[in-house]
Amino acid sequence: MTTQSISRPVCILGLGLIGGSLLRDVAACDASVFGFNRSPSGAQAARDEGFDVSDDLEATLLRAQEVGALIVLAVPMPAVASLLDDIVRLAPDCGVTDVVSVKAQVWELIKQRGMEDRYVGGHPMAGTADSGWSAAQLGLFKGAAWVVTFDHAVEREPSQEWVNLWVDVALLATMVGAQVIPARVDAHDKAVARISHLPHVLAETLAIVGDHGGALTLSLAAGSFRDGTRVAGSAPSLVRAMCETNHEALLTALDEALALLQDARANLVADSPSVEELVDAGYRSRIRYEARSLGKGGRPVLRVRPGQAGWVQQLLHAEDVGARVDVF
Amino acid sequence: MTTQSISRPVCILGLGLIGGSLLRDVAACDASVFGFNRSPSGAQAARDEGFDVSDDLEATLLRAQEVGALIVLAVPMPAVASLLDDIVRLAPDCGVTDVVSVKAQVWELIKQRGMEDRYVGGHPMAGTADSGWSAAQLGLFKGAAWVVTFDHAVEREPSQEWVNLWVDVALLATMVGAQVIPARVDAHDKAVARISHLPHVLAETLAIVGDHGGALTLSLAAGSFRDGTRVAGSAPSLVRAMCETNHEALLTALDEALALLQDARANLVADSPSVEELVDAGYRSRIRYEARSLGKGGRPVLRVRPGQAGWVQQLLHAEDVGARVDVF
Repeated sequence: MTTQSISRPVCILGLGLIGGSLLRDVAACDASVFGFNRSPSGAQAARDEGFDVSDDLEATLLRAQEVGALIVLAVPMPAVASLLDDIVRLAPDCGVTDVVSVKAQVWELIKQRGMEDRYVGGHPMAGTADSGWSAAQLGLFKGAAWVVTFDHAVEREPSQEWVNLWVDVALLATMVGAQVIPARVDAHDKAVARISHLPHVLAETLAIVGDHGGALTLSLAAGSFRDGTRVAGSAPSLVRAMCETNHEALLTALDEALALLQDARANLVADSPSVEELVDAGYRSRIRYEARSLGKGGRPVLRVRPGQAGWVQQLLHAEDVGARVDVF
Repeated sequence: MTTQSISRPVCILGLGLIGGSLLRDVAACDASVFGFNRSPSGAQAARDEGFDVSDDLEATLLRAQEVGALIVLAVPMPAVASLLDDIVRLAPDCGVTDVVSVKAQVWELIKQRGMEDRYVGGHPMAGTADSGWSAAQLGLFKGAAWVVTFDHAVEREPSQEWVNLWVDVALLATMVGAQVIPARVDAHDKAVARISHLPHVLAETLAIVGDHGGALTLSLAAGSFRDGTRVAGSAPSLVRAMCETNHEALLTALDEALALLQDARANLVADSPSVEELVDAGYRSRIRYEARSLGKGGRPVLRVRPGQAGWVQQLLHAEDVGARVDVF
């Protein structure tokens, strides 16, 4: 068990489902946290519940700089670049993390601004089909994977400040009940294309094919259709942002899916129609996933002391086996 | 509200997830019900809970004939033909229904045996990824659609006995909390290809593509992957039986899905990668489904008095709009 506490206040920029839930959780831990929301009504709604939230970005960033806060970017990808410019200008000494669902494009923006030594990427694998402050909830991250990136430490020897930042990002995730999974940005983006972006594409497709069947078809829809289309109810702008930003990795996953479906089609039009190959393989895959992710065992655990000799090798190993790390 | 009661005892052949749950529910209504299970251990397990269950098919069918029971076929498609032969031989006067997930192939077997005037097809749209008596549960059908077929009444003037049988099948469904949706076999099979069989095919596909990503990928899998692959955990033999038996309608649905995915692929490799078209259409479809099937309104209702002039026209109308019928 981690017993350390995060060493600085937390400043969350963007209070939608993820940012808002994080604000609730961090506040519930009695840690110092304040936030910014672009929409004054959303900020007011949060203030009405007693949270320390502003709709003044400049004032919020100046405050973050003053108290040496950890800044959390909790906005959709399209809003990241301009926020980073504001941070460079107004909070030049703050450590920065983010919760954006793709990592390579954020990393690119970080490198363009020379912010590598004060940035550690993050991505909590949690959410619902709802969005906005009103959807934010306590405990959203409990048991969830929270990816924490470390490309900077692989590419060069990071500063002690960066190591401290990495620890604080890991502690932030741990504080709200998530499990820290180290991964570099490319490994992350390839993985989420398969288990988050492709599921959205297939859910949208299934929803449309069901709808084309007309009234009787929708009337008969039960559990398999309801679950298979659930994430098609997500806000289209958010689904587009993640899929389009990660289009290369998504294409790879989609092509694998298309190949499997084309094979299934060929077997369906054969003289003895069969889906044996697909169904047997799919069943084995699901069982493997259940054993790994839903089973009692859960993810393997590695204990890591950041900054110690060999710790980056440990992170690489954790990435390879999908382990969570416990910082000590 | 229907206030009528089913007019005869119920005899359930096959006590897996569906048949076993039906046995529990009918018994809980204090209606007369007995059953047969091929596996002696499954039959014993049911008897141990106080249910009237045998593993002797011949004795069960002779008893059904003697008490004039409604026989419910609750076995997978491959077992239907031989059971029908046994019924012809041992229970020649009993009305027959079934809960098989495809209807055209069962109807074909019925016609081959000249049983049209004593058969009414059924399909409760309920289930879990588990199977067998141990998965059977009380209340499984509550609120579920229960398709009841009526091709025979469209093809010719049915006997009064058939009308009475239709009423009892509808009452059986109503008794366990389901909603009666009239549909002819072809309309049913086309509908379930879209909202049950295609979801299985896509779930198997997604499970495989996720698995191919390796340990990190599975470690990061969260809600969208879990829900999108849930039914890939169903017993492969059951998934194969329903998909392969309904291969023509499934092919139509699969081809629609493939066309959508190919379009999405083309838009992903364009100069400005976009999934706008797919995501916007999928979102609208899901919202329409939610409004119809998960909303407060629920399905439209038609009141029908079986046997009365024009009642078959009412059933055709109900099929057209996906309405449930209330028998009075």
